[in-house]
Amino acid sequence: MEVTRTLAKFLVSHRYADLPQKVRHEGARSLLNWMGCAVGGSRHETVENALAALADLSGPREATVLGRGDKLDVMLAALMNGITSHTFDFDDTHLKTVIHPSGPVASALLALSERKHMNGKDFLHAFILGVEAECRIGNSVYPSHYDVGWHITGTTGVFGAAAAAGRVLGLNEQQMVWALGIAATQSSGLREMFGTMCKPFHPGNAARNGLLAALLASKNFTSSNAGIEGRRGFANVLATACNYDEITQKLGETWEISLNTYKPYACGIVEHPAIDGCIQLRNEHKLKGDEIESISLKVHPLVLELTGKKTPQTGLEGKFSVYHSSAVAVIHGAAGEEEYSDAVVRDRKVIALRDKVTAVVDKAMHEDQVHVTINLKSGKSLEKYVEHAVGSLGRPMSDADLEAKFRGLCANILSKDEAGKLIRLCWDVEKLKDAAELARASVPAKSKKRPAAKAKKKGKAR
Amino acid sequence: MEVTRTLAKFLVSHRYADLPQKVRHEGARSLLNWMGCAVGGSRHETVENALAALADLSGPREATVLGRGDKLDVMLAALMNGITSHTFDFDDTHLKTVIHPSGPVASALLALSERKHMNGKDFLHAFILGVEAECRIGNSVYPSHYDVGWHITGTTGVFGAAAAAGRVLGLNEQQMVWALGIAATQSSGLREMFGTMCKPFHPGNAARNGLLAALLASKNFTSSNAGIEGRRGFANVLATACNYDEITQKLGETWEISLNTYKPYACGIVEHPAIDGCIQLRNEHKLKGDEIESISLKVHPLVLELTGKKTPQTGLEGKFSVYHSSAVAVIHGAAGEEEYSDAVVRDRKVIALRDKVTAVVDKAMHEDQVHVTINLKSGKSLEKYVEHAVGSLGRPMSDADLEAKFRGLCANILSKDEAGKLIRLCWDVEKLKDAAELARASVPAKSKKRPAAKAKKKGKAR
Repeated sequence: MEVTRTLAKFLVSHRYADLPQKVRHEGARSLLNWMGCAVGGSRHETVENALAALADLSGPREATVLGRGDKLDVMLAALMNGITSHTFDFDDTHLKTVIHPSGPVASALLALSERKHMNGKDFLHAFILGVEAECRIGNSVYPSHYDVGWHITGTTGVFGAAAAAGRVLGLNEQQMVWALGIAATQSSGLREMFGTMCKPFHPGNAARNGLLAALLASKNFTSSNAGIEGRRGFANVLATACNYDEITQKLGETWEISLNTYKPYACGIVEHPAIDGCIQLRNEHKLKGDEIESISLKVHPLVLELTGKKTPQTGLEGKFSVYHSSAVAVIHGAAGEEEYSDAVVRDRKVIALRDKVTAVVDKAMHEDQVHVTINLKSGKSLEKYVEHAVGSLGRPMSDADLEAKFRGLCANILSKDEAGKLIRLCWDVEKLKDAAELARASVPAKSKKRPAAKAKKKGKAR
Repeated sequence: MEVTRTLAKFLVSHRYADLPQKVRHEGARSLLNWMGCAVGGSRHETVENALAALADLSGPREATVLGRGDKLDVMLAALMNGITSHTFDFDDTHLKTVIHPSGPVASALLALSERKHMNGKDFLHAFILGVEAECRIGNSVYPSHYDVGWHITGTTGVFGAAAAAGRVLGLNEQQMVWALGIAATQSSGLREMFGTMCKPFHPGNAARNGLLAALLASKNFTSSNAGIEGRRGFANVLATACNYDEITQKLGETWEISLNTYKPYACGIVEHPAIDGCIQLRNEHKLKGDEIESISLKVHPLVLELTGKKTPQTGLEGKFSVYHSSAVAVIHGAAGEEEYSDAVVRDRKVIALRDKVTAVVDKAMHEDQVHVTINLKSGKSLEKYVEHAVGSLGRPMSDADLEAKFRGLCANILSKDEAGKLIRLCWDVEKLKDAAELARASVPAKSKKRPAAKAKKKGKAR
């Protein structure tokens, strides 16, 4: 069975007209969510440091660092946008594999769109195909691959980026086989890096290297024909078990992007049911925090294993505390990036309520579920059982939820009008004559002049 | 035990004055051999295709593609020179691990020298330290890492490039820890790619990505502090067994570059004893080929497993035929790139002698050994037992051998004077005020103008 070739054949021959409307809409939803994360993360220290290290090495400054005025060559822009879109860990999740699918694929593709013209349909098609390749390869090796210690977003993202870029570069079947092979031999990213700047580096690097793979293959730079399934290929070397049917069966019939989910809260997904339950009780009973005697949670075992930090000291630590998350859910009615700032984690009122939260493991709970009891000082007791947390496949975020999330992420960067325009462009991606419009519209007017001039000056100063 | 930090501390604090003279000379020998391979491979289709794909994306064209007029940004030049230096598989070998050490390290470092000034001492020091990091990390996971299917030159080369570049960038200890971590999370390269353009891509990509790691770390882009030894770090994820003492013990006392070897023949190392024996008999008895009735070899088992191709049809296949190699050894008295051209493999006289070669496995033979019997039509029988093949640690190539190899590799590219000048610069590397002189001297006068103009035109035409 030629696994790599079967996938390559599909990637180069699938027709846009055969994409169901629902799949195309999910593509637009993924795009919108990714764009919001990228713009929202565009001022973070992680990308500032990366730009300080690499911007001077840029080639033709054709591609936009989303949300900023800076322009870089397509490979460096792909790197930066992959970094920013995963910096808050707030991007999309393919729950079957815990891949964050959009980062590597969209970052490579949108950067490329500013060098090689493509319309919105071709862009969306390549994006959906890239996600398909990435997630199917992930399905084939999950969970053994992840358990070994690989950060699956990096390791499979490079295939997704290569597939998407290869599609719009017009690779033929053999070239697509090579592109997937060149991607395979660059597949990398270790879970050891979690909690450091290298975590968001992984989707960025996957975007950069996937793009490189497609560019090389377009000029007949050869690789193995069995990059995925060969005896010493990706699956056999980076996993202890694999099922190639996950890659080759039902191609064009099922779509992995349909299984994509979006986080409503800027923290680990295991805490989401608790936050959801607390926000629901808050809204239903107009709670403010002062009136609460105690909050008790019955949770899935992973919640305490991964987010059991009782006294977080920083914003980042707050993300790993179901106690902090429950407290801000009640007090702020939200758990966005702002609720995980150092200031909010150190806020007296938040700390006071956080200390009233207890959590016990209930093995009957599924990962999606929680049971929340809030005891009021009045003696009254409020209860909420969450069957499916918002943002899960069972209760997905609505289009309006996604827009609200986008606006929240971009509030400090884009004006309301600019955010509205970019939201519309994402929904209407299919109608765009030039997909690069998405990148251009991500740059706020106030930063359009300054950094562009800076870039020019840098170019001259060399 | 902090493995990564112990290594980082050594890399940033070691003093040049504490390098034994013998080690420095071995560094110069490695440099000369690497340079010859890079210049010799600089016209190959592999690098032509890579340039066609990527040259237009270059940033500041500061660094030389060795042996050519093209200039590229430092990361792309590092990629190209890593590719060319491994294209003929004729570069150096650290026999303990089968790492080809110089490609990733020297390619990153020499490219960087054209952007950031460094003298010859600092260059040589960083080169030796990079090789040290690369080979020690290789020692710690060999052979399980290689057996899993990793191309160890790619996977460890990225550490070597990061270490060398980090040293000349003046990283502090913490930054070097990060650089090694960013290298760890990019570690990649699959043996499945052997026989394709991706094999030489691996050292090139290691050079490119190691340089990226050092540049990022220099601007405080963080990674795990335990990139090598962490539970989900390099060693635990990419190998099934590891010994950290290989990394941390006797730092500064033993030098891995002292264990470096150089191939006299442009083919797999297991064939070298047979070629050596045949050339010795040819020279001692002035053989021409016609007078031979048969050639019988007693060889180590790996010889037939890896190079047992009886009727090679192409130059590349010839490299995997101990029969062809023995025939050209007698007829040409050599086994360089020319002896592995399609024309020579198809030459009637070579084929006629090739068909008279037989080989049998003798389990008493070490990998370094061979027993050759040549029966002449006259009835006379000539015998040669080789204890250590030339190029092995037991019988290393002399400095004069390395010069002759260099001249052979560069004969079609550099004039005799140009080759002589470049050889002298490599020997005198310690005395150079500007290490970048090495890169500049690799460009033949005849190509200095044309491709530079071409590059400029490309830049404009975009």
